[in-house]
Parts: sequence; C-alpha cells; structure tokens
Amino acid sequence: MPGVPPAQYGYFGPAGTFTHQALMTLPALHGEAIPFASVGQGLQAVRDGEVTAVLVPIENSVEGGVTATLDNLAYGDPLVITREVLLPVQFTLFARPGTALRDVRQVLTHPHAAAQCRDWLAAHLPGALVTEGGSTAAAAAEVADPASRYDAAVCARVAGEMYRLTPLAEGIADNAEAVTRFVLVSRPGPVAPPTGADKTTLVLFLREDHPGALLEILEQFASRGVNLCRIESRPTKRTLGDYCFSVDAEGHLDDARLAEALMGLHRVCADVVFLGSYPRADQQRPVIRVGTTNDDYAAAASWLRRLHG
Amino acid sequence: MPGVPPAQYGYFGPAGTFTHQALMTLPALHGEAIPFASVGQGLQAVRDGEVTAVLVPIENSVEGGVTATLDNLAYGDPLVITREVLLPVQFTLFARPGTALRDVRQVLTHPHAAAQCRDWLAAHLPGALVTEGGSTAAAAAEVADPASRYDAAVCARVAGEMYRLTPLAEGIADNAEAVTRFVLVSRPGPVAPPTGADKTTLVLFLREDHPGALLEILEQFASRGVNLCRIESRPTKRTLGDYCFSVDAEGHLDDARLAEALMGLHRVCADVVFLGSYPRADQQRPVIRVGTTNDDYAAAASWLRRLHG
Amino acid sequence: MPGVPPAQYGYFGPAGTFTHQALMTLPALHGEAIPFASVGQGLQAVRDGEVTAVLVPIENSVEGGVTATLDNLAYGDPLVITREVLLPVQFTLFARPGTALRDVRQVLTHPHAAAQCRDWLAAHLPGALVTEGGSTAAAAAEVADPASRYDAAVCARVAGEMYRLTPLAEGIADNAEAVTRFVLVSRPGPVAPPTGADKTTLVLFLREDHPGALLEILEQFASRGVNLCRIESRPTKRTLGDYCFSVDAEGHLDDARLAEALMGLHRVCADVVFLGSYPRADQQRPVIRVGTTNDDYAAAASWLRRLHG
Amino acid sequence: MPGVPPAQYGYFGPAGTFTHQALMTLPALHGEAIPFASVGQGLQAVRDGEVTAVLVPIENSVEGGVTATLDNLAYGDPLVITREVLLPVQFTLFARPGTALRDVRQVLTHPHAAAQCRDWLAAHLPGALVTEGGSTAAAAAEVADPASRYDAAVCARVAGEMYRLTPLAEGIADNAEAVTRFVLVSRPGPVAPPTGADKTTLVLFLREDHPGALLEILEQFASRGVNLCRIESRPTKRTLGDYCFSVDAEGHLDDARLAEALMGLHRVCADVVFLGSYPRADQQRPVIRVGTTNDDYAAAASWLRRLHG
Repeated sequence: MPGVPPAQYGYFGPAGTFTHQALMTLPALHGEAIPFASVGQGLQAVRDGEVTAVLVPIENSVEGGVTATLDNLAYGDPLVITREVLLPVQFTLFARPGTALRDVRQVLTHPHAAAQCRDWLAAHLPGALVTEGGSTAAAAAEVADPASRYDAAVCARVAGEMYRLTPLAEGIADNAEAVTRFVLVSRPGPVAPPTGADKTTLVLFLREDHPGALLEILEQFASRGVNLCRIESRPTKRTLGDYCFSVDAEGHLDDARLAEALMGLHRVCADVVFLGSYPRADQQRPVIRVGTTNDDYAAAASWLRRLHG
Repeated sequence: MPGVPPAQYGYFGPAGTFTHQALMTLPALHGEAIPFASVGQGLQAVRDGEVTAVLVPIENSVEGGVTATLDNLAYGDPLVITREVLLPVQFTLFARPGTALRDVRQVLTHPHAAAQCRDWLAAHLPGALVTEGGSTAAAAAEVADPASRYDAAVCARVAGEMYRLTPLAEGIADNAEAVTRFVLVSRPGPVAPPTGADKTTLVLFLREDHPGALLEILEQFASRGVNLCRIESRPTKRTLGDYCFSVDAEGHLDDARLAEALMGLHRVCADVVFLGSYPRADQQRPVIRVGTTNDDYAAAASWLRRLHG
Repeated sequence: MPGVPPAQYGYFGPAGTFTHQALMTLPALHGEAIPFASVGQGLQAVRDGEVTAVLVPIENSVEGGVTATLDNLAYGDPLVITREVLLPVQFTLFARPGTALRDVRQVLTHPHAAAQCRDWLAAHLPGALVTEGGSTAAAAAEVADPASRYDAAVCARVAGEMYRLTPLAEGIADNAEAVTRFVLVSRPGPVAPPTGADKTTLVLFLREDHPGALLEILEQFASRGVNLCRIESRPTKRTLGDYCFSVDAEGHLDDARLAEALMGLHRVCADVVFLGSYPRADQQRPVIRVGTTNDDYAAAASWLRRLHG
Repeated sequence: MPGVPPAQYGYFGPAGTFTHQALMTLPALHGEAIPFASVGQGLQAVRDGEVTAVLVPIENSVEGGVTATLDNLAYGDPLVITREVLLPVQFTLFARPGTALRDVRQVLTHPHAAAQCRDWLAAHLPGALVTEGGSTAAAAAEVADPASRYDAAVCARVAGEMYRLTPLAEGIADNAEAVTRFVLVSRPGPVAPPTGADKTTLVLFLREDHPGALLEILEQFASRGVNLCRIESRPTKRTLGDYCFSVDAEGHLDDARLAEALMGLHRVCADVVFLGSYPRADQQRPVIRVGTTNDDYAAAASWLRRLHG
C-alpha cells in the first residue's frame, strides 16, 4: 500500500519487557515495534519477512545463556546478528497508586526476577507471598487491574510506567551488576564494515567427539591470535554427551586473523554456523597480539607470493 | 520415635515426575522418598541433614544443562554427587478415563514437555490448545480432577498411573533418543572406590579471564590423558563474560592421571570445586591412552625416586 | 668463448668423495662437475654464478646435521634447495694392489669415517694405527702413492676405484643402515611444481626467546596439519641460549596447508628463511589429515567469501 | 705411596686447551688434572673409575652442540653432570719470542679457531697461510719449537703462556661474545641439593615418530611451568628422520614442577636419560609462573588428600 511502510522491528514482548526497554535504546530504529510472545515466534517472523529484524535476549550475567535463542539460531534457517544491546537488569517494585510498601501482601513477577530479587524481598517484604507468572510485563498488567488479588509487581521500569503504577522501590536486584545482553537478528545480507570493536558469533559442531576435539577448535582461534568473549556448550539434541559450541569471538569477518580462523574452523569442524559480525555494545577494542594485524597478514601473503620466484 | 529410621531420600518432585521415576530405578535406596518442590529446596535439605541424599536432574540431551542444579552445586555449600541415573525421556499423553484422543481439546503440561512433543501434538491434536504449567506431575493431578477444564496431560508414565489416568498415546516425544541425566547428591564424605568406569564432576574458576585460559585448563586434562564427557560454561554472576566451567571428566579421584590433573587444576585455577567421583550409569570404561595407567604413573614415580641416587 | 657452455655443477670434493658419488646418482645433470674444497666455497660459487648448482651434504643419520651447510644456508645470501639425494654410507677398505688385509699397519681416513668404522677396525685390524686426515678421497689419493707410509684407506668405493686401489673389505661401517643426505643448492628462482611427495626446508628465528616460543612455532605447523621431518636447533651466534631452528616440513609451497603455515610463521617469527620446496628422495607421500587437502582449503575460502553476503 | 689420593679430575686436553682453562676456574677442585686426548676417552675414564670427574665442552655459542659429548652422554653407560662452566672464547695470536706481527707468514691453529677468527686474520694477516691442526694447544706447542715452519698460533692464553710464547694480538675472535659451555661429568650418585638457580639435562627419546610427538613432549614441560634453556635434536643413529632430543630445563630434580614434568616425560617417552641437576653457571634464577612453586604443588597435594573425605 503506497506510502505506508511496513512495521520494521520486532521484540520479545509483551510491551514493557526488558527486551522492549532494550529496543528503545537503539535510536536509529524507526517504524512500529511489534511484540512477539516467544523468542521462536519473533525469529520466525524475521525468516518469514514479516519484520526486518527482531530483538531477543541471548545471555544474562546471572542466569547464563538464553537457550531458546541460542538453539533457534543454531538449528533454524539462517539468520544473522547485526547489533547487540547490553542492559543493566534493574528491577523495580511497582504497586497500584495508593498502596504503600507496608501494605504489600501479594507480589507477582517472572521466575527469573523472583530469583534475582530473592534477598531484597526476604528483607523488605518478609511476610509477602511471591507468585511467579509468565513475564514481568504481564505481572505489571495484572497488578494494574484494581480487581487483582496481587498488590505489587517486580518488573522493568518501562512496564510499571506503561501501566501507570507507582514505584515503591527501585534497583532491588540482589546483584546490582547484573546485565542482560540482547541481539538484533536479521536475515543474512551484506555484512556491515568493521568498526574496530567488533564481535563475531559462531556455532561450531565437532567432526567427531574425540577427547581433544574442543582443544583443537580453541587452537584454531589461538594460533591466529583471536580471543573468545564467550563459549557455551549446547547439546546437539542427538545423544547425551554430543555438544556443539556457541562462541563469540573478538573481531570481524574482515579482520584477517578472524577470517583465517574461520577457514580453519570450516576445515576441522563438521559444521560452522556463522551468526554475524557486529559492533560490540561496550565498544571495547581488542588487544591485538603481535603479528596478527591486517598489515601483518598482508605482509605475510605478500612474502609468500615472492617466494614463488 | 525409637527404632524408626528417618526418611532417607529426597527428589525433585512432586511425586510422578521424571525425577521420581528415575529414583525408582535405584534399587538399593530404602526408606521413604520425599519430594521437594524445587531443586534448591532438595539440595538444601541434604545440607541441613533432613535427608541423606537427593536426586535432581542435571542435564537433558535436548534442553542442555539444568542451571538450577549446576549453579546450586557450584556456588552453594559443599555437596557431592555419588550416583548418576540416565532415563530415556518418554512422554505419554494421559486423559481421564473415558476420554478418547479425538475428544482432547485442552492439554496441560510443563513447558519442556510441550517443547519436546511439539511436532507430535501438532500432527495428532492439531486443534487442541496446549497450556504450560509448573510440572508434568501437577498436570496429571489437575487432569485427574473431574472438574478440570483440561482433558489430557503430557507427563511421565508414573504420573499418569499415580492419578489413575488412561494412556492415549505413548512415546510421543519428537526425539525418541532424548535422555535426562539425574544425579544423587549427598554431603561430602569418603569417596567410594573406583569401579573402572567412573566419572568425576568439577567446577573450574579461571584465575584470570585471559584469552588462552580455557585452553590452559583443557591442557591440564589432555597432558595427563584425561578425557572430558561434558563441559559447560556458566556465568559467575559477576560481570558478563566472566565464566566458570562445569566439567565431567572420565575417571576417578583414585586414578593417578585424574589425581594429577586435579592437582594441576588446583594450581592454575582460581578455584576448583570437587563435586564427586562416582560410577558412570552407562558403565562405559575409558580408552586409556598409552602411558597413563596407574601402573605407568607408579613406574614414573618409582623411576623419579631412583634418580635421586 | 662462444659455443662452449660453462661448467654447470659443483660438489663438495675432492673427486671420489661420497658427495661426488651422490652427484653421480642424479642422471639428468649434464656438464662438467666441479669439486670444491669446502661446503662454503661450493655454496659461494653458486652465489657468484660460477656454477648453476652445487651438491653438499646436509645430514647424516649417525653424525647428525652438517653444520657448515646448515649455517651457510641460514646466514648467507639467499640460496634454495632444489633436489635431495640419499646415499647409504658404505665404507670400503682399499689398499694398494698387492697389499693383503693382514699386511695393513697404517690406515688413513676422515674422522667421521674412522668414527663410523671404529668397531670393524678394532675387530679386524686390531694392531693397525688409524690416522685421520681431511677427506676420505684425499686418503685414497695418498694411499695410491707408492711412497706413502699408509697401507690402506677407508673411503667410498668411487674414490678407491678412481685411484685404482684394491678393495680389501666392503661395507665395513658399524651401522649398516647409515645414510647421508645431500642437497642440490641453486640461486633462488621459480619453484618447481609439486610432485605430491615434497619437502620444504626453512630456518626459523624466534621473535623472543620466551619459554613457549618453540611450542608456538610448532603449533603453527600442527594447526594446519603440516608434519615435520626434521627439526634442529642451531645457535644464532649471538649469545648462548639463543637458537634458531632448521626445519624440514612435509609438503610444497603450493600446498595450501604449508602456504598458510608459512604465512603464520612469517607473522610469529622474527625471521623465516625459505630454503626451497623440492621432491623427497624417498618419494614418500604425506598422510594428509582430514580437512587439510588443497580442496578443503579452497572450500573454506569459498565459504568465507559467501559469508560476506 | 699410602695416604696420597689418586689424581681426581680429567679434562679434554692437551694441557693449554680452553677446557683446561675452564677447569682452572673451578677453585674447589684439588688434585692433579689429567688431560684426555678425546671427549670419549675422558668420559670413559670416569666410567672406569680412573678419575672422579672430567670436564668436557658441550656447547659453543657459535658452533653449536659438541656432538661427541652429547652422543656419548646419551648413548653410553650412565653419567651425570654436576657442574657447568661458561668461558668466553678469547683467542690470542701467539708467536715465538722475537717474531713481530708483520713477520707472520704461517699460522697454525684448530679448524674451529680458524673459523672464528677468519675475518681478523684476513684483515690483519692478509698474506699469511693458515693451517688447521688437531688442537689449539698442540698448535702452540708446535710453534714453540724453534725448528717449526709455523710462525704463530691462534690459541687460548693459557696455551701460549704454557709454551712461553709472545702474544701478538689478543681478543681476535670475530664474535667477541662467543662463549663455550663445559660440563663436569661424574658417575651417578646422590644429587646435590638445589641452589635456586639450577638446570637439569635430559635426553628424550620419542615413543613413536608421529607428527605431534615433539609438541607433546614440549607440553609436558609447559603444562608444569618448566622453561627450556636448550633443545637440540640428535639422530638416534637408526634411520634418517629418527631423532632424540637433548634438553636443558630450568630447575632441579627437587623442584616439584620439574619432578612432575619428569614423570610425565617418563610416561610419554620411549626413554628418558637423566643427565643431572646442577647449579647454573650464570646463577640466573628462573621466573616462576603463578601456580608452580613448591608450595603450590604441596598445597595441591594436600587439597587432593582432603578430597578423599
């Protein structure tokens, strides 16, 4: 339909989730943002062309990897990561207007949030009953209903504000440093040029599950001077003890050291799934080991050509 | 009350869960088995001396590691694994007596079960609504209630039988090979002698998060001829990118090669948590590399002593 | 002078040495063969264009590396190896016609020959005096002089025949398997195409003499599936404990795995001296590790290009 | 005569060699020093109990390893190194009294000395003829004979002084930094306690000559934090391409990290020849990697014992 651009971006919803909050930190994304009820539905919507990209959580500094995301990217039809967002996990206790902290008897939240605020809740609401529901945003919605039996919700600030609730206490996570990492996922296309502080995500399937297989893979990185930021084993869903490895490596597809490591992995692995090269959210540039700059690689290639005489 | 021994064993309940089913495969366990509502509560009961040991799930060939178990063992007060149990994941669709497959409109189950039977449900109950609840056993209990709005539950056979439900379809998991691994956890005590087919579970904390740190750890195993069965990174809950590694190694504390590897790890790691040496459920004996038998280690030690002249 | 081609080949002489004998096994070499009094003089003659190539010994299975050759190639102006020759070391005891074994009182030979025939001489000529001179061929020449005080020479058959001596005993080396390896050395030029059973000779200078430096270098080969046939440390002539490594690797400059290893070495080493890719004398083809054929490398490069989208 | 102890020490002679000069730097050695005509004869005299110990050269910073010493220690009956001596190689040009530099027409010396002074001789005695003889000390003796046709000798100062020759030029080696390393060799006996700056010499025979065999051996050192000072391949005298490795490692048999590395080598090697732990002549203490002190090893062993419960 002329003049009306399609909705562009999706996120793991509903509105008011941390993922939603993370999406709003990406300034350049215009168009309507569409919530998806599950990571899988969001990723499928990208594959089906319903949205340009979707933001999903991939890792939490307390809970670890988000397996729904890791496995869907590893085993589903090709998708790539083009951006990452880091969001401090800041939980707020929200109640209906007029409810004071001392009045809270029933708290609703998501199991992860309950786990991450356990100590605070025990200390400040020792007599309250904590119930775990499907999402922190849904908890806020429920509490907003005057007929609800729940007095308060532990959720993201965006959710509390969306449902016009009153904040009773902010920053109630037991671990103040907790961070969740989200990735923006698109269909494969031209890889954006390197920024100098980039990350590349891969899934590596071992050719055989022999003892030194993981060592061999790590040496493919090490011998080219490529550092790893994250490594996580995931079952291949065949038999117990058969794993693949989800890996974030420092650097970009256009960095010679990473390119050579990728080719090495392609040769020694049963399969390598490339999930994108993209700018690091923390903008941290790698410490490049002596002999592994692009210039070093170019000089080596030039020397090799001269050897042919 | 004199002469009445206390209940000995706990499991991740409620009654009828797969963990309960796994517990019943351990013939030598006498005494009453006590269900615990969460992995954490079960493990705490062991620490508190309420039960002798508790059986909890640690890994699933489809879903991966059970993070509640992994993290509690890694970060909580010392516990050790003394047994492991492997249980094929066989889901059954149970209904109230008198309900036929074609009558099923509403299915209740646990999210993992829903995920693992998704294709079967889509093919055989395309019009049914699947609701996800807290446990497969609780789903069976709910369905057993004649007033329930749910017609059927996807659960373990033991749960269906416990609630006198009628099996409508057995073995409905999409992946027929799926297996869950459970571990029996006790307070630390004398380690049982090796059987020749043993496994040792460890949690390894890197001293510093430098690039080759994981490589260095893996070499501690490799240089002694110790193979790994499982390696899984877990966040240390400090900052994103700071991991520890949960590892199952082939062999027993009394195997010289494993003992030397353990000492090597103790030297290069910031911390090593020993979670027990115990018989492998699959009774698979390791392929021992040349030069790494106990006799080889003893011969080397004897040679070393002779060198002193 | 027009029409007269220059002499083409040199060898470590004088005429009648094992090197001369080795040169004669190379059928395709036409033109006059010129003896040089030392390895250094022969190699310099190639550099100066006086000869096309020179044959020099590089390694003996009993004595080890020929340091004059190794060091001249490593530190002198660029030269390359284009062929190798293996020659069983077969020493013969030659005397002037009319001399019987029992008459031999004085034996002349080269120190290496004396060392390699020590047991035989002690057993068969227990009363004879063995004098060590500059070359086995010169020993034969000396013995051929009727006025010589020496009765017999230990030398190569070619030398004895050249001076019309009588063989008293053949194959008198204590180690019947001893082999000397010779290399044909030329000025750098286009590298001949691979035969499938090739060898590449390198000299590797470590960037810094840190503990793991040699390990790092070996991993450059190992991570590409390149095997080594020979590795020999040589002092860099700076301070004690500062070494370079003379290495023969399986494969040819045109083998992708070797080419990538060479580039890796160029990046991690202070210097890499390429001393040629040439056919193995034993025609032994390498066992190529899975994932390291030229096709595997080409497939990896092609995959990498496709990743750019 | 009763009460007179036999001569104690031998050296690679004759009197006046650099080895003799090195021996005189060892203050504590009393008794008569006996020259031996070859390294092999000197080492055999130790084995036969004719002398307590013998000093022989093992390595030169310009020429490399002294193969006669390396091979005799590796393949002969057991001997151990108990001391090492480093001696700067300082060549002096000596002549008969009355001879001026400009009168020198004929120079006699040993081939190694000729090689190491080549540039100086070419620059300062361009017209002189240099003849190579059996030892620098013998050259001095010859020149001391007024009837000799040689005018000057290149030799150690001790030799020139012994034969009352006149120094014409000192420090004439082209490489002023050249150093020779000598070792004092005895029959095996109790190993002297560590000094904190020690070295251990080994010969390592690979079990099989597979590609990664050397890498595997180096990892036995690296995984225990043991650095190598010297590694040198030597042919095993069987077939070309079959090597053993002569190695100097930092540390002492009583250092836990070296002891464990030795046991590891004993397990993975076909054979390990222990040639002694002894104080480093340069008194350089090792940089000890984190986790590899004796205390770290003891703490690891103690931790391991506690794990048994």
